[in-house]
Amino acid sequence: MRPKIYLFGDSITEMSFEEAGWGASLTNHFARTADVVLRGYSGYNTRWALKVAERVFPAAGEAVAVTVFFGANDACLPDRCSAFQHVPLEEYGRNLRSIVSFLKERWPKAVVLLITPPPIDEEGRLQNPYMENPSGLPERTNEAAGEYAKACIDVARECGSPVIDLWTKMQQLPNWPTACLSDGLHLSEAGNKVVFEEVVKKLEEVGVSLQTLPSDQPLISHIDPKDPLKSFPN
Amino acid sequence: MRPKIYLFGDSITEMSFEEAGWGASLTNHFARTADVVLRGYSGYNTRWALKVAERVFPAAGEAVAVTVFFGANDACLPDRCSAFQHVPLEEYGRNLRSIVSFLKERWPKAVVLLITPPPIDEEGRLQNPYMENPSGLPERTNEAAGEYAKACIDVARECGSPVIDLWTKMQQLPNWPTACLSDGLHLSEAGNKVVFEEVVKKLEEVGVSLQTLPSDQPLISHIDPKDPLKSFPN
Repeated sequence: MRPKIYLFGDSITEMSFEEAGWGASLTNHFARTADVVLRGYSGYNTRWALKVAERVFPAAGEAVAVTVFFGANDACLPDRCSAFQHVPLEEYGRNLRSIVSFLKERWPKAVVLLITPPPIDEEGRLQNPYMENPSGLPERTNEAAGEYAKACIDVARECGSPVIDLWTKMQQLPNWPTACLSDGLHLSEAGNKVVFEEVVKKLEEVGVSLQTLPSDQPLISHIDPKDPLKSFPN
Repeated sequence: MRPKIYLFGDSITEMSFEEAGWGASLTNHFARTADVVLRGYSGYNTRWALKVAERVFPAAGEAVAVTVFFGANDACLPDRCSAFQHVPLEEYGRNLRSIVSFLKERWPKAVVLLITPPPIDEEGRLQNPYMENPSGLPERTNEAAGEYAKACIDVARECGSPVIDLWTKMQQLPNWPTACLSDGLHLSEAGNKVVFEEVVKKLEEVGVSLQTLPSDQPLISHIDPKDPLKSFPN
């Protein structure tokens, strides 16, 4: 059985198999070595994620890694139009710690890779035609997202887990608000590429890579054209 | 546990999570309802696929559907540069029948959806810079691919399985050799879209669709903003 890499998160995870998405790129990267399993739940915060974790992750199946990518919804401001998704900063840290503990207990050898929420482009949020927001004020701010990102990094440090500081990383890129984001929150093609490359790099640093995972069934490049069946003993 | 949709095939399956790939699009389509599991093996023909089937498909896990997409390599001509991948037409049919029987025995309720090899653009094959082919003759012809496609349709009819006649379908599209194919054999973005849409349509016809599969965990659109936790009983 191939090992699994679970992607646990909110809409930025659920949408990761859209065109040029980071989840699809990971599946392609690990095509013959690991199964990438999508467990993205649009709109979810850590409070709801914790409620469903037992049902989302069955005990069966070997996981080598789980990405945990929450915070973008927790960081919705408590007095704006997406307030029902807001989770206070202190509770966010606690919930995230509980999610990591749960996953570590489920799979003691699995890498639990935390990803901070991305930065927010407030202008981009206000132009989102899909959201009912008569106030004219963004439901998320970059400053709030940054606080949740910091809390995520603290949890990773406490738990000894690797972490991708996406909030900082993206803001170092030129024109990040429109280059990396599609609507001030979700990822553009370039933003997806950043996440994909960071996940591959972080997993490699902790020993999960094409070099360490065995290939499933003989590769065509290893099959002897003069005697192909030699590669397929009964 | 979510049901699984396995994709079993050769490189056209293994590469289906590249940009705009049909496997990635299927994963996105079924994001909250089923796990799309990649079992693509570049270069494989039905003879080798049959050799590995037991190891590729463990008994565990509920499958609702399996796509079986082989024939492009079986149809390599026996006297050209990819001869070692060739499988005679009669054996191809027999192997395909055995693969369907094996899957039906593994999961009696699963839909086994056959897909014929795509048409071949011989000009495109000769321009492939990755293949050593000093003969100047294409290793595959469209005519041969068509014979394997017909055999695949015959097997589907005998087994009572749905089938996508990709060979015929693609040739009905304008400029198919360059519009649908990237190198005379593998799929372009438009070619990937054809396969994705055909798979969704065929699965829907046999009752596997977003309408019939339950969603995993409450959808954000069903969560009451005034009392979100109502959706998450302990």
